[in-house]
Amino acid sequence: MFESAELGHKISKEVYKKELPNLREALLDAQLDLLQSARFPVIILLAGVDCAGKGETMNLLHEWMDPRHIESHAQRELTDEERERPPMWRYWRDLPPKGKIGIFIGSWYSAPLVDNVHGRTKNAELDQQLDRIIRFETMLCNEGALILKFWLHLSEDQQKKRLRKLEKDPKTSWRIKESDWKNYKQYDRFRLVSERMLRTTSTPEAPWIIVEGADDRYRSLSIGKALLDALRRRLDAPETPQASEPLPPLFSSIDGLQILQTLDMTKKVIKKKYDDELEILQGRLNLLSRHKDFDRISVVVLFEGNDAAGKGGSIRRITQALDARAYRIIPIAAPSEEERAQPYLWRFWRHLPRRGRFAIFDRSWYGRVLVERVEGFCSQTDWMRAYSEINDFEEQMVRNHTVVAKFWLAITQDEQLKRFKEREKIGFKRFKITEEDWRNREKWPLYEQAVCDMIDRTSTEIAPWTLVEANDKNHARIKVLKTLCSQIEQALAKL
Amino acid sequence: MFESAELGHKISKEVYKKELPNLREALLDAQLDLLQSARFPVIILLAGVDCAGKGETMNLLHEWMDPRHIESHAQRELTDEERERPPMWRYWRDLPPKGKIGIFIGSWYSAPLVDNVHGRTKNAELDQQLDRIIRFETMLCNEGALILKFWLHLSEDQQKKRLRKLEKDPKTSWRIKESDWKNYKQYDRFRLVSERMLRTTSTPEAPWIIVEGADDRYRSLSIGKALLDALRRRLDAPETPQASEPLPPLFSSIDGLQILQTLDMTKKVIKKKYDDELEILQGRLNLLSRHKDFDRISVVVLFEGNDAAGKGGSIRRITQALDARAYRIIPIAAPSEEERAQPYLWRFWRHLPRRGRFAIFDRSWYGRVLVERVEGFCSQTDWMRAYSEINDFEEQMVRNHTVVAKFWLAITQDEQLKRFKEREKIGFKRFKITEEDWRNREKWPLYEQAVCDMIDRTSTEIAPWTLVEANDKNHARIKVLKTLCSQIEQALAKL
Repeated sequence: MFESAELGHKISKEVYKKELPNLREALLDAQLDLLQSARFPVIILLAGVDCAGKGETMNLLHEWMDPRHIESHAQRELTDEERERPPMWRYWRDLPPKGKIGIFIGSWYSAPLVDNVHGRTKNAELDQQLDRIIRFETMLCNEGALILKFWLHLSEDQQKKRLRKLEKDPKTSWRIKESDWKNYKQYDRFRLVSERMLRTTSTPEAPWIIVEGADDRYRSLSIGKALLDALRRRLDAPETPQASEPLPPLFSSIDGLQILQTLDMTKKVIKKKYDDELEILQGRLNLLSRHKDFDRISVVVLFEGNDAAGKGGSIRRITQALDARAYRIIPIAAPSEEERAQPYLWRFWRHLPRRGRFAIFDRSWYGRVLVERVEGFCSQTDWMRAYSEINDFEEQMVRNHTVVAKFWLAITQDEQLKRFKEREKIGFKRFKITEEDWRNREKWPLYEQAVCDMIDRTSTEIAPWTLVEANDKNHARIKVLKTLCSQIEQALAKL
Repeated sequence: MFESAELGHKISKEVYKKELPNLREALLDAQLDLLQSARFPVIILLAGVDCAGKGETMNLLHEWMDPRHIESHAQRELTDEERERPPMWRYWRDLPPKGKIGIFIGSWYSAPLVDNVHGRTKNAELDQQLDRIIRFETMLCNEGALILKFWLHLSEDQQKKRLRKLEKDPKTSWRIKESDWKNYKQYDRFRLVSERMLRTTSTPEAPWIIVEGADDRYRSLSIGKALLDALRRRLDAPETPQASEPLPPLFSSIDGLQILQTLDMTKKVIKKKYDDELEILQGRLNLLSRHKDFDRISVVVLFEGNDAAGKGGSIRRITQALDARAYRIIPIAAPSEEERAQPYLWRFWRHLPRRGRFAIFDRSWYGRVLVERVEGFCSQTDWMRAYSEINDFEEQMVRNHTVVAKFWLAITQDEQLKRFKEREKIGFKRFKITEEDWRNREKWPLYEQAVCDMIDRTSTEIAPWTLVEANDKNHARIKVLKTLCSQIEQALAKL
């Protein structure tokens, strides 16, 4: 795998001097087109052998292009705000928006590689980590990102020479630490694991580009040209929406029986019983939120449901039990400008709670496979891939000790009609019934199909959906609280 | 001051029950109007004697209104990301956007109060802190915020009773810690300092509202009504832009001599000398950025100047000397949607660097007193108050060991014309000359006046402006680098 990068590639001073001005001009030009079109973000990863020139390359790219629209990120200690979220949170915060360039040294590849080299993980675990990375990058590419992954290679001999040289020069000796020599002694092991990693994660959308790092000029020119080429190809491609290949339809059971139809919509809880149970459940939830281990977990609750199904009311029954400092409600409306410049899930990642906190989403990332699907706001390819992207997202939360409680509040068409009419009669502005509500109603069967597909594809062992029969509000609220309490209890028990 | 809040105010159960439904309905109604108009944010501070009902009130407000559009913040440990910024940074991040409500327990008043009660600050220092708070709140009000500051009071006797009661009840005993009794013993001192604080910071825009906290119903109803009243009055006021009272003109020297005219625009550095000096200065800057104490300071550099004065080129001469990980360039263009929903300075606060980092602003908060003033994008009142708001902002940075280096790059009208024409000839898109550039040129005298006023009013001992004669790019770049290095050296020397 690294053979071609150990051939002793070299570029002479003359050739370099001759080629550089054109390259820089063209790169700057491409960068400006990128900025002005703001169609996609560019993510550049610089990885590889120690001292192979990652830092130099990063600085060079800043110099060659307009540094105002590049942001570089290096491996650094996690802040405590980052430590309390899933490991990928820090990278999500650093993702460049459309039109900009983000350079990462020490990216999501660092920890898996280093941990395996030093024997802290077994190969099976490494493969699992790499698989997650592939899915993450595929998602970014599907969301439009251009990802360039450069691996700067040095042979064992070359690395030794370079370490010595840097050490000798008083201007650079500060860069060489004892740990560098220690790592160097692990060269063979490092090479072995790197190869496995590169092989596994070289995908068609985001292949690794291996560059010999020994000769500065060769390295710089190679990377510059590869970047220019990728930028130019992408910028010059016509901006047609991806031709949505006809996808196979989702499976529909031939007898027409759907999960939603199995709900017993007559379920009811009478007032007296409701009052008693509510008090008990709210007390239980309150105690859980003050449990001695509660600051080791976090809780994400999300509500989806038919219009007028009572999401707001259910949320209030939860928050009544909590201290206002301990939760945040995130009402999901149209994305903001900054959110639109990022991948779809970005605006949810940014609201993930710290330890010991609740984040309650009033509508959620499931909008992608519900309203966006039904209304055609995204292509079929987009919402089809969303199922597994969402599963990945939730899996990361759960792995980080976040309880993920998902509620679908279901009412019948008749009940909805009744509530719409009541709301129109009260005419109170916070229950304004709009044309849109009536239009959505006409698409009831389409929404129903979308909900069933969503449940089939995203109700997982670790983050199951709870279907709530919500024709009776009392029943709905009790079921929500009961489910939430028990999910939190399970998470605490597992610590 | 607290006499009226020790009268033993009480509201009977009957009255409470009768009044509450209407109050809640009206509050919810007002909150919806607030949300829909999105004209201003509401900031509610809950402060006062321990156990006087701050937490209860916060929870009640969440229950009475729609909790999806309220966010509550409590005194908590600073995160490390917060510790590296000026103390007010954490509050800036938490400010509610227009249309929303933010509730703060333990606000910017906590530390000054507690520190003084426990003798960690002298009164003179307290007064200084309170003065800064007043200026902060005045700025928020001028930016449109509605601020409500509630002080929940208990007499010494009442507090003792309440502590005992909470302690006895097994449901609430967890809330009482040893420190609460300790604080209680300081009641007199606490009362004295509180009184001083309330007196000083009760401004016409944001007066304190003192509420007796002993009777839950009295307290809740009082606060609810005060909030409703303030909301309603503000919402129902006609949305006319503040009638800009005619302000006295800024002082103009009668001989017409301006600071910009004193610059020697013929200053030049020849190529050979430039190359030598540039290398030396970039080396010096690089060493400074790796100085052992550099991670105890941070650096904010900002560039303003005539169009085509060479800001970009100067920035590049700085970044060439730095590791790309150590700096971020923030190009200032039109504010984003999220930024427009916040006070003017919010979008700059969010970019303040961590320790050991550079933030380089390509244009800055001075846009307020330059382009916004000249083009009439804000009222005279707005840009007149901006001078002191900006001074306050920079003072906070400096107090937090941030170097603030401000450069005005000046070129003559002739030189600008020459550069415009050159750019038109090259026609290269990154130097596109627009209609707007030519229009700005016609307003040269207005801009010149604005620049002189800006320098007179914001060139301070702690954050001085450096005027850079930029007709000769070599001279400009050398002067920028030299100044920056020496400012950093001074800051390091002062540690």
